[in-house]
Amino acid sequence: MDFEFLKKLIVPTETKIAMIIMDGLGGLPREPGGRTELETARTPNLDALAARSSLGLTVPYGPGITVGSGPGHLAIFGYDPARYEIGRGVLEALGAGFTLGPADLAARGNFCTVDAEGRVSDRRAGRIDTESSRELIALLRTIRLDGAEVLVEIIKEHRFAFVLRGEGLEAGLSDMDPQKNGVPPNPVRALRPGAQKAALLVNRFAAEAGKLLASRRPANRILLRGFDRCPVLPVYGEIFGLKAAAIAVNGMYKGVARLAGMQVLPVDGVSLEAEFAALEKNWKDFDFFYLHVKQTDNAGESGGFDLKVRVIEEVDALLPRLMALDPDVVIVSGDHSSPAILGTHSWHPVPTLLYSAYVRPDGIGEFGERACLKGSLGQLPAKDVMPIALANARRLAKLNA
Amino acid sequence: MDFEFLKKLIVPTETKIAMIIMDGLGGLPREPGGRTELETARTPNLDALAARSSLGLTVPYGPGITVGSGPGHLAIFGYDPARYEIGRGVLEALGAGFTLGPADLAARGNFCTVDAEGRVSDRRAGRIDTESSRELIALLRTIRLDGAEVLVEIIKEHRFAFVLRGEGLEAGLSDMDPQKNGVPPNPVRALRPGAQKAALLVNRFAAEAGKLLASRRPANRILLRGFDRCPVLPVYGEIFGLKAAAIAVNGMYKGVARLAGMQVLPVDGVSLEAEFAALEKNWKDFDFFYLHVKQTDNAGESGGFDLKVRVIEEVDALLPRLMALDPDVVIVSGDHSSPAILGTHSWHPVPTLLYSAYVRPDGIGEFGERACLKGSLGQLPAKDVMPIALANARRLAKLNA
Repeated sequence: MDFEFLKKLIVPTETKIAMIIMDGLGGLPREPGGRTELETARTPNLDALAARSSLGLTVPYGPGITVGSGPGHLAIFGYDPARYEIGRGVLEALGAGFTLGPADLAARGNFCTVDAEGRVSDRRAGRIDTESSRELIALLRTIRLDGAEVLVEIIKEHRFAFVLRGEGLEAGLSDMDPQKNGVPPNPVRALRPGAQKAALLVNRFAAEAGKLLASRRPANRILLRGFDRCPVLPVYGEIFGLKAAAIAVNGMYKGVARLAGMQVLPVDGVSLEAEFAALEKNWKDFDFFYLHVKQTDNAGESGGFDLKVRVIEEVDALLPRLMALDPDVVIVSGDHSSPAILGTHSWHPVPTLLYSAYVRPDGIGEFGERACLKGSLGQLPAKDVMPIALANARRLAKLNA
Repeated sequence: MDFEFLKKLIVPTETKIAMIIMDGLGGLPREPGGRTELETARTPNLDALAARSSLGLTVPYGPGITVGSGPGHLAIFGYDPARYEIGRGVLEALGAGFTLGPADLAARGNFCTVDAEGRVSDRRAGRIDTESSRELIALLRTIRLDGAEVLVEIIKEHRFAFVLRGEGLEAGLSDMDPQKNGVPPNPVRALRPGAQKAALLVNRFAAEAGKLLASRRPANRILLRGFDRCPVLPVYGEIFGLKAAAIAVNGMYKGVARLAGMQVLPVDGVSLEAEFAALEKNWKDFDFFYLHVKQTDNAGESGGFDLKVRVIEEVDALLPRLMALDPDVVIVSGDHSSPAILGTHSWHPVPTLLYSAYVRPDGIGEFGERACLKGSLGQLPAKDVMPIALANARRLAKLNA
């Protein structure tokens, strides 16, 4: 849906939309003929809601395409993920908690080990522990560059986020990481004329880092890759007329929500219960709530079928707290599938439920992959969910009225 | 799906994909309330495979559009048939066994009858028998042109394939065939400036042919139409990372497969059994196999409902030989529908089965038009099948990994 088209139809009103995204929700049966994680979970509240909802399966990007969290979230937020791209470096920086401006240049950083001849001998510096990394990060923060500010933040183990902030820093840089051992790190090259200033500064930073780390083991060098600037997304307030809030624990999801113009709400802890408490606390102040459940994907990615089932059951148990707020529209979906038997993201369409007083209820008293296949939403691009939600929230005027 | 996009996600691996195309597979019930050809056929092996597969219906081109074999095959091979076109002349030439280069100009040829005033009196020369045609083709082969080589090959009865091979032969020629009796053949005109050389040569050839055939009856002239050059398709090796093989008996299908970069395997005979034997013999040497079953379409086009049923049953009986090879992904589909009660190609979506260990099995133990309608593939563009097959073969990386 073209946002310029949609914007003209938006009518302000008081209705509220809640979107619960269980990360990696879609699954696969553990054994032939068996049930998926969602089908296995005992979800009396979701099942009861399903009976009053439209069900379907969302396709985040296109047939057969497995998406990462970035494009998966953009799609369910209503953006065409083929048009709006979030580079990996940007995602990492958002995940590390940076609030990126449009002029910031972000990258993924690794500590690595180089030998006496300067050749990479371990691209991950023996997966150095997070605490040791944190100490090295403090060293990196002492580096000063003429012409730009540098921000670095630990992510986990050998990984950190890198942000160059200043004037005239364009994207279009080659990677420093050679992706194999036995060769020296590649100097960063400008792939476009405008990126020359950034290339110069990045190489200078890496050289300074090498000096500061020279006597350290195993981490005695850094590798930077995935340079990109933050995309400028049209924001929820403007395109959907929604005052939107995000409830998430992990930085990456907060970051993507912020790009969409959502206000990230404080959560008192990292539990699902704390996220639902934040929802209740802020209910009166926003029109739209995105609540992110990371634990489903963690379980799926680590092959934890039973754990994923339990997380879904935990969400189900918390659902009445949302329903008690009397939302006008509820979406329950995922950003992609992460079947535990695959232990990774997958291409499978994502079970999706859309409740409002104005859907044609499918009367299917079950929320699961095969139940959703029979639902009236059909199999639809994930980006089409938001216009349907807005319609159900009575927030879209008639075309050609 | 954009091939440039897809190419970036391709990961090399050892998995194997087999695609069985029953030409004109889709059908219609013989009588109201009855079963289609596929629903009538006893197919215990396909039914058992269906239970472990995703089912759906493929739309070769668009709603209501009936396709010929060219666009039908392009679509199920993964090409957008609206973007890549194979002219009828090219298809005929491929069908006649010509290996066309990008500079060859192909056309359909007919022998016809003209009266004493040079007006067409029978556009098909009384459907002259193939043997008589073959003798006339030998005459046509004696014609020499300055500036290009001419290749002619009998197809059947009054029909032959015509190829002009040389430098600077561009497409964009009007048809010679007036499509009605009582008027003389039209001289070929260049519809674009670049096509003038070709027009000149084609008219010269037709004039020479007229002289050579002048005393013959009923075939005393030739008509040429459907001039086109061979499209250059992005090939399977490049766009899908697949070492692909084609098993087909009829030249047209071999030709289209060759355009897609598939290696056409020798088949010892023309039976289905011989095709499956070729599959077994070459199994270890390729990643992708296209196996074409022509007999279903022959039966459908000649109105042979029962014959089409029997051909489908024959394919079903051979299916265990494919499954014994332990393929990672199996697609069973058609290039279009050819219901026997219509006796021709039709616009109806085509029953399609996709098996792998990683589909969400629909648990529908039947392969038929109405069974497929309940399947999780839904009704999808035929060109979307290949990306889903690649995903199931674990040959596509995560987007934005």
